[in-house]
Amino acid sequence: MLVVMKNDATKEQVQAVIEEIERMGYRGIAMPGAERTAVCIVGNKGPVDDIRLLTMEGVKEAIPVTKPYKLVSKETVLEPTVISIGNIKIGAGEVIVMAGPCAVENAKQAMTIALYVKAHGAQIFRGGAFKPRTSPYSFQGMGEEGLKILAKVREETGLFIVTEATDNASIELVEQYADIIQIGARNMQNYSLLRRAGQPSKPVLLKRGFAATIDELLMSAEYIMSEGNARIILCERGIRTFTNTTRNTLDLSAIPSIKELSHLPIIVDPSHAAGRREFVIPLSKAAVAVGADGLIVEVHNDPAHALSDGAQSLYLEQFAQLMKEIKLLRKTGV
Amino acid sequence: MLVVMKNDATKEQVQAVIEEIERMGYRGIAMPGAERTAVCIVGNKGPVDDIRLLTMEGVKEAIPVTKPYKLVSKETVLEPTVISIGNIKIGAGEVIVMAGPCAVENAKQAMTIALYVKAHGAQIFRGGAFKPRTSPYSFQGMGEEGLKILAKVREETGLFIVTEATDNASIELVEQYADIIQIGARNMQNYSLLRRAGQPSKPVLLKRGFAATIDELLMSAEYIMSEGNARIILCERGIRTFTNTTRNTLDLSAIPSIKELSHLPIIVDPSHAAGRREFVIPLSKAAVAVGADGLIVEVHNDPAHALSDGAQSLYLEQFAQLMKEIKLLRKTGV
Amino acid sequence: MLVVMKNDATKEQVQAVIEEIERMGYRGIAMPGAERTAVCIVGNKGPVDDIRLLTMEGVKEAIPVTKPYKLVSKETVLEPTVISIGNIKIGAGEVIVMAGPCAVENAKQAMTIALYVKAHGAQIFRGGAFKPRTSPYSFQGMGEEGLKILAKVREETGLFIVTEATDNASIELVEQYADIIQIGARNMQNYSLLRRAGQPSKPVLLKRGFAATIDELLMSAEYIMSEGNARIILCERGIRTFTNTTRNTLDLSAIPSIKELSHLPIIVDPSHAAGRREFVIPLSKAAVAVGADGLIVEVHNDPAHALSDGAQSLYLEQFAQLMKEIKLLRKTGV
Amino acid sequence: MLVVMKNDATKEQVQAVIEEIERMGYRGIAMPGAERTAVCIVGNKGPVDDIRLLTMEGVKEAIPVTKPYKLVSKETVLEPTVISIGNIKIGAGEVIVMAGPCAVENAKQAMTIALYVKAHGAQIFRGGAFKPRTSPYSFQGMGEEGLKILAKVREETGLFIVTEATDNASIELVEQYADIIQIGARNMQNYSLLRRAGQPSKPVLLKRGFAATIDELLMSAEYIMSEGNARIILCERGIRTFTNTTRNTLDLSAIPSIKELSHLPIIVDPSHAAGRREFVIPLSKAAVAVGADGLIVEVHNDPAHALSDGAQSLYLEQFAQLMKEIKLLRKTGV
Repeated sequence: MLVVMKNDATKEQVQAVIEEIERMGYRGIAMPGAERTAVCIVGNKGPVDDIRLLTMEGVKEAIPVTKPYKLVSKETVLEPTVISIGNIKIGAGEVIVMAGPCAVENAKQAMTIALYVKAHGAQIFRGGAFKPRTSPYSFQGMGEEGLKILAKVREETGLFIVTEATDNASIELVEQYADIIQIGARNMQNYSLLRRAGQPSKPVLLKRGFAATIDELLMSAEYIMSEGNARIILCERGIRTFTNTTRNTLDLSAIPSIKELSHLPIIVDPSHAAGRREFVIPLSKAAVAVGADGLIVEVHNDPAHALSDGAQSLYLEQFAQLMKEIKLLRKTGV
Repeated sequence: MLVVMKNDATKEQVQAVIEEIERMGYRGIAMPGAERTAVCIVGNKGPVDDIRLLTMEGVKEAIPVTKPYKLVSKETVLEPTVISIGNIKIGAGEVIVMAGPCAVENAKQAMTIALYVKAHGAQIFRGGAFKPRTSPYSFQGMGEEGLKILAKVREETGLFIVTEATDNASIELVEQYADIIQIGARNMQNYSLLRRAGQPSKPVLLKRGFAATIDELLMSAEYIMSEGNARIILCERGIRTFTNTTRNTLDLSAIPSIKELSHLPIIVDPSHAAGRREFVIPLSKAAVAVGADGLIVEVHNDPAHALSDGAQSLYLEQFAQLMKEIKLLRKTGV
Repeated sequence: MLVVMKNDATKEQVQAVIEEIERMGYRGIAMPGAERTAVCIVGNKGPVDDIRLLTMEGVKEAIPVTKPYKLVSKETVLEPTVISIGNIKIGAGEVIVMAGPCAVENAKQAMTIALYVKAHGAQIFRGGAFKPRTSPYSFQGMGEEGLKILAKVREETGLFIVTEATDNASIELVEQYADIIQIGARNMQNYSLLRRAGQPSKPVLLKRGFAATIDELLMSAEYIMSEGNARIILCERGIRTFTNTTRNTLDLSAIPSIKELSHLPIIVDPSHAAGRREFVIPLSKAAVAVGADGLIVEVHNDPAHALSDGAQSLYLEQFAQLMKEIKLLRKTGV
Repeated sequence: MLVVMKNDATKEQVQAVIEEIERMGYRGIAMPGAERTAVCIVGNKGPVDDIRLLTMEGVKEAIPVTKPYKLVSKETVLEPTVISIGNIKIGAGEVIVMAGPCAVENAKQAMTIALYVKAHGAQIFRGGAFKPRTSPYSFQGMGEEGLKILAKVREETGLFIVTEATDNASIELVEQYADIIQIGARNMQNYSLLRRAGQPSKPVLLKRGFAATIDELLMSAEYIMSEGNARIILCERGIRTFTNTTRNTLDLSAIPSIKELSHLPIIVDPSHAAGRREFVIPLSKAAVAVGADGLIVEVHNDPAHALSDGAQSLYLEQFAQLMKEIKLLRKTGV
């Protein structure tokens, strides 16, 4: 249920509605919009008796929200959410490119790649300091040392930083160093981590689990948003199917699906979906054509010796080629 | 194994190689290329002893073919196959658009749609006369009456015709009326039908089964080609996964996968993949951006009353919009 | 819609109802049951106006059938269907075992295996004469020669024969030689073949396509039954998923699902599901425990040299072990 | 690599081998077996030069471990692992039954169910205090209050307790109250939680993620075991596929797959796989027949009013029926 306030409703009127909702045993969350504020009722099972609310001052109407997710739903927030990080706007029509290595390996590697991707148009630098690896014996990331390198990259290049947090300990560190906190696919339903990411500090990049439906992805975003952090970027990165020419199947239909259901921006990770650098350029172009708000791609200066995910990392010159093709594509207004 | 002939090898030398291969107990199929002919050895299990062949006149070299499919492999035919139908060339860099209703319902419906899609740039008209339907009680198509309507459409609009054959009886009729014989997803492993489609008469549009791997699709094409028909167009139309916001999951990675493995052209059917018209335009744009050689889309003048697949059929004006967007996209050289 | 006749309704009354249904523009199919006859209305879209029918003589009541399949539905036929072949009853509580090689390779091989499986309790001999193979270059079966060998096996061992028909040509032959006509997984939606199999001659073993839902399997059975052949045995043989320790994933939940929805018997093929002989015995036991009406397993006297599917064929002594374990299991009344 | 010690090797010799391995830059983990100790080398990439180790005193031989998981592999530990909890032995041939509600709702509900399942043969009581729910607005469990109720259940009934920990905070509490710590399917790749569960305190029940391969499940178990906790019980609970008559597809082939690859016991959760109580009994029987070491089933005294998962919870009398059928099945020595 969404209680839509009149355009000229006062803060006090909004607050009174929230308090009345709490008296009814639910939670009321104010959702300020461009023209009017709405109060979203969450925590109810089944329909809410709205007569009392409708008679309150400043209330315009009550709209049922038919989806299990409320705050992330397009029913609740009509305009697309735009997430600003410095001068970058994600979800405002531009294609934002996040690029960098799978893992930060050392300062020289990170800086070499960062300078290159910056020079070719990337706005955000990606690189893992905490790596969730299938094997306990694989390289698990540099930890805080890696974060410090990322901070240095930002300082020297002006690129913003996105990096993954894997648990409540690492998120404490990541939010100190990064501009965007990434929640990886395997943690998409780690609700404890989602709640922690919902404490408003930094925007969150939430990757779709490789076997998650769109509804489940949106429910996970709802966990974050219900804690108070509305700055969420979703990310499609391939789903697990029976196919075997790519590591996962990039589900580009997810982009229009999410645009239809939610106001949150959505970007695409073609690198993890394909698992092979040869397919990253064509899939990136397809992602842009289908309407994604951005891309997150793996780039490495020496993929053959990368400590992780070498096979799917673009060579530097391939990244330049990618940016050239994306630019061309964007000229058409796609 | 591929026996590559010298550029100046004579027909007699090619023939002699084929005969020698047959003496060895295999089959030899001549594959004429732009510059030289190769003879593909099929029917062997394990390696072929090639010493005898290498010493024959006109033979340049012998190359092992590592894939289970031979004739459709890029190892065997180096240049992309271009399929000419009248003045249309499929696989030559243009994006060919096939459009029309799911099923031919009557002459007026077919002609209305055909004139419209022709006017907006479609080159080929699609429309089913024999419909494979999940339920025996659903409309099964008009049969030969439908084919006659399609022939009339061609006559009056100049559009070429693609329509589905569902068994050995209907293919006899379809090849008389159509320019391209469609083998549907559910018949992708109907080997009897594939063999029949391999008798060289008309080009074949072979749709990927909704649970078929790329290798299986190419093996099915190999069935057709091994019978003598090399004019095959492949079609990605979505695979069955756990997702639920679209009917199937369009696997656009299939396009670069197939381009890497085979010389055959590949088009995309966004209508059946999505199952919803709202997603057809964005998915079509993505298909073009990823490198597809064409599109096959459902268009209906009155989707609400369509006898089948109404929900996924574009309105006429949506088709015009689609063509406009594709044209724009193509200007970039995507 | 099901028009249930009174227990003492006459043939003429049933016929009158059918004719009235036809006058309404639908088809009426008489379904004789143990105590009363029902007439199933098929071909209608949406609800049928039943007032006229309810007032006819001999009519007891009209029951809506909520499923898209009618004749195969448990709503239409209340008692489980039992299929008798000689003295064997499939669907009557016994676990029927069909065993034999993937393909008939020669008379000696077939007879060796047949005598062994007969001695250890199999009731039906399986063996392919027409093999649908992924590759056009693989062994495609012995054709009619193979069928003659199967006929000889029946003659000499008393085993009944199940073998696959792959198209309208081979079904003509198969129905002359076999006791059960098998429609393979890849032909589950080959509607032309299903219709042909529906001409009442021999019982049909219909295998679930490896990406077919239960509803689709039942719709395919409906194709057969709507043509007049009610003697259908369903078969679960594994579905395609992301797993990789077996060829397919045996979906044993399909057994109670089908028992809930349909009156048709259902057996299990653990050999094709697993793709590995090591798992055939445990999966067979699970199939029996979950309530399957029978098993179809591959057995070979020399799997290492089998012309197809060697890896999943049981050794002879393993088949003996399987039968011993099944027998033990059955003692519990499972 | 596994360094197998002689039967009479001393502790000092084992320690010397471990130290030598550490000097080589790897980790050595002693794996005591019934007759001899082996030292497993982990952390190496590629082959280990074993000449130095082979010449050390007490060393019998060095065996390469071909799987990415080492400690959980059957190559490393030859005998099946038996996990003792009080007088219960999991993995020793008995079918252990864990039963109870999805969530602990209050003391009366828990005790009612516990007394019933105890009376009918369950050995372990299940019930969630921390519930990972798709929606942030759903009941999230009673937390420590629920754990206290579980402790009371153990005290009064003698049943052992299994309950889920969802993060590093809840595991601190769970290990104080429970006998087995459950890691749920959605946390199967929550490596931070796995590492914490690896600190040897209580046995761990590790559920397979609904899109995890067998290898991934075993790698997750390896995370736990590499931290020092070898008492791990695996659990198959259904995988996500395209089917729609059950919530997930129970993959019973996982049981023989795991038995082939690992020494760890494996149990089956038919309730979450089916999502419907009607299928729990047949699937449980199949699980026992296929060789599972136990079952974990949901039982509720009032499913219609359960706070979660009501549809899949057995009625009390259904649980009695289940136990009766399992007992009968076990009499055959299945």
